[in-house]
Amino acid sequence: MSRTYNHFNVTSPEPYVAHVEINRPERLNAFYQEYLLTSPPPSKYAQVFNTLSHSPDVRSIVLSGAGPSFTVGLDIQKTNLAFPGSDGARKAWEIKRGVAEFQECISASEKCEKPVICVLHGFSFGLAIDIACTTDVRISSADTRFSVKEVDVGLAADIGTLSRLPKIVGSLSWVKDVALSARIFSAEEALRVGFVSAVESDKDAAVKRALEMASLIAGKSPVAVQSTKAIVNWSVDRTVADGLAYTQAWNAAALQTGDVGEAVGAMLGKRKARFEKL
Amino acid sequence: MSRTYNHFNVTSPEPYVAHVEINRPERLNAFYQEYLLTSPPPSKYAQVFNTLSHSPDVRSIVLSGAGPSFTVGLDIQKTNLAFPGSDGARKAWEIKRGVAEFQECISASEKCEKPVICVLHGFSFGLAIDIACTTDVRISSADTRFSVKEVDVGLAADIGTLSRLPKIVGSLSWVKDVALSARIFSAEEALRVGFVSAVESDKDAAVKRALEMASLIAGKSPVAVQSTKAIVNWSVDRTVADGLAYTQAWNAAALQTGDVGEAVGAMLGKRKARFEKL
Amino acid sequence: MSRTYNHFNVTSPEPYVAHVEINRPERLNAFYQEYLLTSPPPSKYAQVFNTLSHSPDVRSIVLSGAGPSFTVGLDIQKTNLAFPGSDGARKAWEIKRGVAEFQECISASEKCEKPVICVLHGFSFGLAIDIACTTDVRISSADTRFSVKEVDVGLAADIGTLSRLPKIVGSLSWVKDVALSARIFSAEEALRVGFVSAVESDKDAAVKRALEMASLIAGKSPVAVQSTKAIVNWSVDRTVADGLAYTQAWNAAALQTGDVGEAVGAMLGKRKARFEKL
Amino acid sequence: MSRTYNHFNVTSPEPYVAHVEINRPERLNAFYQEYLLTSPPPSKYAQVFNTLSHSPDVRSIVLSGAGPSFTVGLDIQKTNLAFPGSDGARKAWEIKRGVAEFQECISASEKCEKPVICVLHGFSFGLAIDIACTTDVRISSADTRFSVKEVDVGLAADIGTLSRLPKIVGSLSWVKDVALSARIFSAEEALRVGFVSAVESDKDAAVKRALEMASLIAGKSPVAVQSTKAIVNWSVDRTVADGLAYTQAWNAAALQTGDVGEAVGAMLGKRKARFEKL
Amino acid sequence: MSRTYNHFNVTSPEPYVAHVEINRPERLNAFYQEYLLTSPPPSKYAQVFNTLSHSPDVRSIVLSGAGPSFTVGLDIQKTNLAFPGSDGARKAWEIKRGVAEFQECISASEKCEKPVICVLHGFSFGLAIDIACTTDVRISSADTRFSVKEVDVGLAADIGTLSRLPKIVGSLSWVKDVALSARIFSAEEALRVGFVSAVESDKDAAVKRALEMASLIAGKSPVAVQSTKAIVNWSVDRTVADGLAYTQAWNAAALQTGDVGEAVGAMLGKRKARFEKL
Amino acid sequence: MSRTYNHFNVTSPEPYVAHVEINRPERLNAFYQEYLLTSPPPSKYAQVFNTLSHSPDVRSIVLSGAGPSFTVGLDIQKTNLAFPGSDGARKAWEIKRGVAEFQECISASEKCEKPVICVLHGFSFGLAIDIACTTDVRISSADTRFSVKEVDVGLAADIGTLSRLPKIVGSLSWVKDVALSARIFSAEEALRVGFVSAVESDKDAAVKRALEMASLIAGKSPVAVQSTKAIVNWSVDRTVADGLAYTQAWNAAALQTGDVGEAVGAMLGKRKARFEKL
Repeated sequence: MSRTYNHFNVTSPEPYVAHVEINRPERLNAFYQEYLLTSPPPSKYAQVFNTLSHSPDVRSIVLSGAGPSFTVGLDIQKTNLAFPGSDGARKAWEIKRGVAEFQECISASEKCEKPVICVLHGFSFGLAIDIACTTDVRISSADTRFSVKEVDVGLAADIGTLSRLPKIVGSLSWVKDVALSARIFSAEEALRVGFVSAVESDKDAAVKRALEMASLIAGKSPVAVQSTKAIVNWSVDRTVADGLAYTQAWNAAALQTGDVGEAVGAMLGKRKARFEKL
Repeated sequence: MSRTYNHFNVTSPEPYVAHVEINRPERLNAFYQEYLLTSPPPSKYAQVFNTLSHSPDVRSIVLSGAGPSFTVGLDIQKTNLAFPGSDGARKAWEIKRGVAEFQECISASEKCEKPVICVLHGFSFGLAIDIACTTDVRISSADTRFSVKEVDVGLAADIGTLSRLPKIVGSLSWVKDVALSARIFSAEEALRVGFVSAVESDKDAAVKRALEMASLIAGKSPVAVQSTKAIVNWSVDRTVADGLAYTQAWNAAALQTGDVGEAVGAMLGKRKARFEKL
Repeated sequence: MSRTYNHFNVTSPEPYVAHVEINRPERLNAFYQEYLLTSPPPSKYAQVFNTLSHSPDVRSIVLSGAGPSFTVGLDIQKTNLAFPGSDGARKAWEIKRGVAEFQECISASEKCEKPVICVLHGFSFGLAIDIACTTDVRISSADTRFSVKEVDVGLAADIGTLSRLPKIVGSLSWVKDVALSARIFSAEEALRVGFVSAVESDKDAAVKRALEMASLIAGKSPVAVQSTKAIVNWSVDRTVADGLAYTQAWNAAALQTGDVGEAVGAMLGKRKARFEKL
Repeated sequence: MSRTYNHFNVTSPEPYVAHVEINRPERLNAFYQEYLLTSPPPSKYAQVFNTLSHSPDVRSIVLSGAGPSFTVGLDIQKTNLAFPGSDGARKAWEIKRGVAEFQECISASEKCEKPVICVLHGFSFGLAIDIACTTDVRISSADTRFSVKEVDVGLAADIGTLSRLPKIVGSLSWVKDVALSARIFSAEEALRVGFVSAVESDKDAAVKRALEMASLIAGKSPVAVQSTKAIVNWSVDRTVADGLAYTQAWNAAALQTGDVGEAVGAMLGKRKARFEKL
Repeated sequence: MSRTYNHFNVTSPEPYVAHVEINRPERLNAFYQEYLLTSPPPSKYAQVFNTLSHSPDVRSIVLSGAGPSFTVGLDIQKTNLAFPGSDGARKAWEIKRGVAEFQECISASEKCEKPVICVLHGFSFGLAIDIACTTDVRISSADTRFSVKEVDVGLAADIGTLSRLPKIVGSLSWVKDVALSARIFSAEEALRVGFVSAVESDKDAAVKRALEMASLIAGKSPVAVQSTKAIVNWSVDRTVADGLAYTQAWNAAALQTGDVGEAVGAMLGKRKARFEKL
Repeated sequence: MSRTYNHFNVTSPEPYVAHVEINRPERLNAFYQEYLLTSPPPSKYAQVFNTLSHSPDVRSIVLSGAGPSFTVGLDIQKTNLAFPGSDGARKAWEIKRGVAEFQECISASEKCEKPVICVLHGFSFGLAIDIACTTDVRISSADTRFSVKEVDVGLAADIGTLSRLPKIVGSLSWVKDVALSARIFSAEEALRVGFVSAVESDKDAAVKRALEMASLIAGKSPVAVQSTKAIVNWSVDRTVADGLAYTQAWNAAALQTGDVGEAVGAMLGKRKARFEKL
């Protein structure tokens, strides 16, 4: 299961657990266009998550950065923001295609069938927030310096932060505060507003906690775990009535699993449950 | 107004206040299928709330469990999870009907016109969370042990927790953390993320607080109170524009109430307002 | 840019920053119908924000109340709640028109293209919450006494609180608690649930902080700032997919700004960026 | 399967086909409140369709009226339109509950899992249109006189016509024409705008055609037929993307049917397929 | 009620019926910016419909063009399509404001509480379709030449045709055919796809028929008529469930009208009903 | 621009016009899994449309089948409907992934930025309808035999027909009629309900007409044409308000095109307009 990509380390530290590291520590894991996107799609980032999504040997994923920082975001010096086109409409077309491709790339961790636990640490600027918003559980190191940085370079954050953040945390006042000011906020603040659900003393402790959670989840029924991710993601965006209806359709198949018997049997027999691959 | 049901105690401890207790304390209020569902619908649980919903003598409702625990959830040993059907599609049909019926049963406390204040205490596992999510205000005892338990028995929680919880609390990271791990969380944590809005030292104190709140609400205009519940529930699931439009239509009738005059008169006259039955 | 309206003071304490004060301190800034609405629309409140919305000299706005209190809400004694009409349907028509007009008036601060930072202080009852919910960032003085007051006068809050509050804070239990009970809550509680994102010791400190934030924002690219407000407001109400699609369309034009070059240039050159008017 | 209800005849003229007749021909099948609603719900109309929905012996349903007319609608002389209540808001509450109950009653033919083919004939006024809109396929006799009649008695049609008709036919101009004018329209016009999909010379021919269609459908895989109804009904109201996603979840179970093999086998073997009950 | 506007004739040819004529026949009723928009809003077009919307003396409206043609659309020579702005983003801002203002102007006939019957005749190009789409019933003269003209001048029709047309007619293939080709289509074709619901031999006959329909509608209960328009317009855009829920809230007030008694009484007494003003 | 794919012919019969032919005439263009899907995605079908979507040399596309028939649909004998998996839930997972991939493949012609004109001819069964529903304009040969065939092989059509057809035509009764009965319908019927917008005497005439339309469209501003497709597709699925808002954002960039000047100039100068590539 352990494969080496150009820009991402993927290892399997525990059974059924994958650990993805953004791997450009010499530049604080700054992304640049070629780093994310290849021609044709899917991008390298998407390739990693698409592969893990369908791998029967993976049941949960931890995402962190190599070195002290998660990522400082887009490497502005290597990013081309001059779009070709003979008029404003044609330039717009190029931009729209580029933004769409970029959004789709990052969405791979959201569409990934398996839960992704994101460990934020060190500098976590710009794209770091976009990426973290696509994951399922966010854990932070105490030293993390967060920033929705885009407004400082003349941009509205367009890879997903502005669309996802309001649904992820519990204060729209805070969302606009940090998105409009680009001010740095701390792990403690991130915990208070619900952006992360746990803070550990340093990066190592945060990664350790994430791996423990990933391992705990990997020991459970993959049918139950992946159904839970799918139904929550569906429901966030829809009415309660539509959430319930989709759940009916989904569970009509999912409840036909041997995992329920195995889980109950293991519980009663006080043994560890073993679930078929999925 | 005080009636005895097989499985639920319904009393009226204060004028216009109903108190519903889940009443199977010898099994920690574990539900089983017959307990919730009768043939034909509505189920017993739904019967209680449907009746209270239309009773002019009830203006607010407190829901708690008899004995130390709210409920440990579904009594797995009395629950039949083997669905009939000659193939996967036919089994799925039975499951879908069963899940739909079960969801509709629990939704009775959400559709109930009167506000429901849920007191969570002791073990509050699985179905406890599904039920609590359908109520309006959640208060906890300090000793409550909460768990979105379903994933531990090979299931995605399908009676409503996964559809409602993301809209009720302020951290999607936390929602997925507890739904994917099934870990026990405390009253303090429930308060921090906004799942409950108050914690009291023990069950008695929590029930007392709930009854006081219920009594306070029961003293107000039932038109105003029930309109408030209706409009908030509508708005949670829709755009602000659709929330405002529905409010216009709703209040076009609701403002034609004598309660406004009575409320203002009582305020100016420093007397207790008395509102017509609704 | 500084103009005097009958009921609102509008000043420009910093470059590109407007400060709007509700100006009826002798009555704790209580609103009455003529105060909000003129015939024909737009109302005075809307006039202020519509003008600031399109003014190229304004990039951010602070809203507070003259005197110790933000506003005690509607001046119930000057408000006519007797609607004409020969039958219930005709009365309803008048009410619906009135509520719609009132909602639209208050929405002007939401539709305003520039970010609005609301400073809540002293009594902040009823309409104070409706108004605050339409703004972008909410800051409170430590002494603020908040109340969703409407239920106490026999009304469901219909100018927007019930439609917007559930999307703004992180606890639906708390929303219903305060909306059903009309109880007074403190700045500390408002911060805990995310209704405000900062609390300062007193009104002066809160206004100072708001002006500093407004000034910080006014120094950034107005294209980036106003795009951020627009995209967040769109996304709150829609699916993530629709948020991302709208962002693509929006940024296709917005990224064609010279502000990116100016912002990056200033950052590298360690100078203050200067952006063209918008 | 053939049961006699007070107000509806239910027969089984063909294997797996049910025929429901509205049975008050002496009054042109006019409905009155007790006729539709019983206390408590479900109403008699709903009882019929709820029962057929779950009966494994029924795979398709024809609905028509006893005697020459489908129905002239609500029997205005037997319908109480005076609602109790001490003020406009309280009256409104009673009305809202009544309208909701009435809507839910009629929706039983829409929620019914099996396809319902509605034969319209003779007078088809008011409630006739509401009911027809909840069914799946509409066939008309050449002599049918249709009218969205409600506006003529001072009402906006509130049992469903106004919500469903715009999604059922292909001309919103026509929908408003007939709903605002209450004018009588013919079978030919109904066919032209797509309200019905076939017209036969008289009632008998129309019923015959409906029964033939019902019989044809009843000979097909009930899994495929009922899935088709469910997915179309879901999709009408939602985005294409949500339609596709729901289809994925639904068919994940439905494709696990032996009916595919049986259908293909029968086709290749040129024999009649036989499907398990559902 | 009869007032003269600069650019629109408004007369009252029948009791409770208003007739609005676009009045620039010497230029085939071509619109230009100043003709539609004034500073500040509302525009002249909106002023007319806003006034009629609230006038108790108007119950239905006919809209047509003075002279042989409805309108050839925007007067391209008098329309400024050069938008100011120092970069693409700033130009975009001006465009967006302009398009929004223009859309809002035209929407006045949609928001108008009273039904609007649009008579299309002669040249009906570009803006003619945008406007017609905002009205309730469309009637055509046999000689009308229709065209969704915008694509021929390098524009996607942005004042509403592309958003409304797909919901108004019964063939999306046809919508795209005419919107992509800008080809001229006839009254007969418009009738076949449901864009108009009636065709008369010439303009005079079409206006006559529209006035007859308007007169018929004006003789009915204004509560019923205006409720019908409101509920249909709401329902077109929403799920059936949301349509039904809104209808409940709306009719809770609307059914409290004396018009039902008057309508039924008149029907039984075979006399003309007389309804109170609304 | 003319490239040969394994299973599709792509030619350029006119400037800026592409013609795609499904190319397996010896089997009536029946699809099989490998024919549509490759590993990894995108599929061959998607590859064709993705390429044309971004090619600056293509402005409109015609899609038809090689030989007499468009396609008889899925080659049931070459299609594997046995899904692996140790239990019903695991089988369901495989099915869901497969259906999703298949749906996404077909959606390529919908997502394609350029208009696609589909010529239906000969047998047009099953997948033929799914594919046609993703295109923009549908033209038919007089001899076409259409069928929503899936129900006959025990399936609900899950590649898109059931989600798209109700939004494309003007009679829901007809949609359910053909989807539940799988009966063959004619070109004339397809025209009457709006599924196709033109019928020609035979395949050659239909292809000729499609190419003429494609050529006409290819001569217009590609900015205007592609914006029109994008905005209509967005609007079909959303409220009018959301359609208008998206149009504002889209046209803010699109109106900054030189094509408007070129189009108007050519019109006034009575010359053919020449537009920059897009």
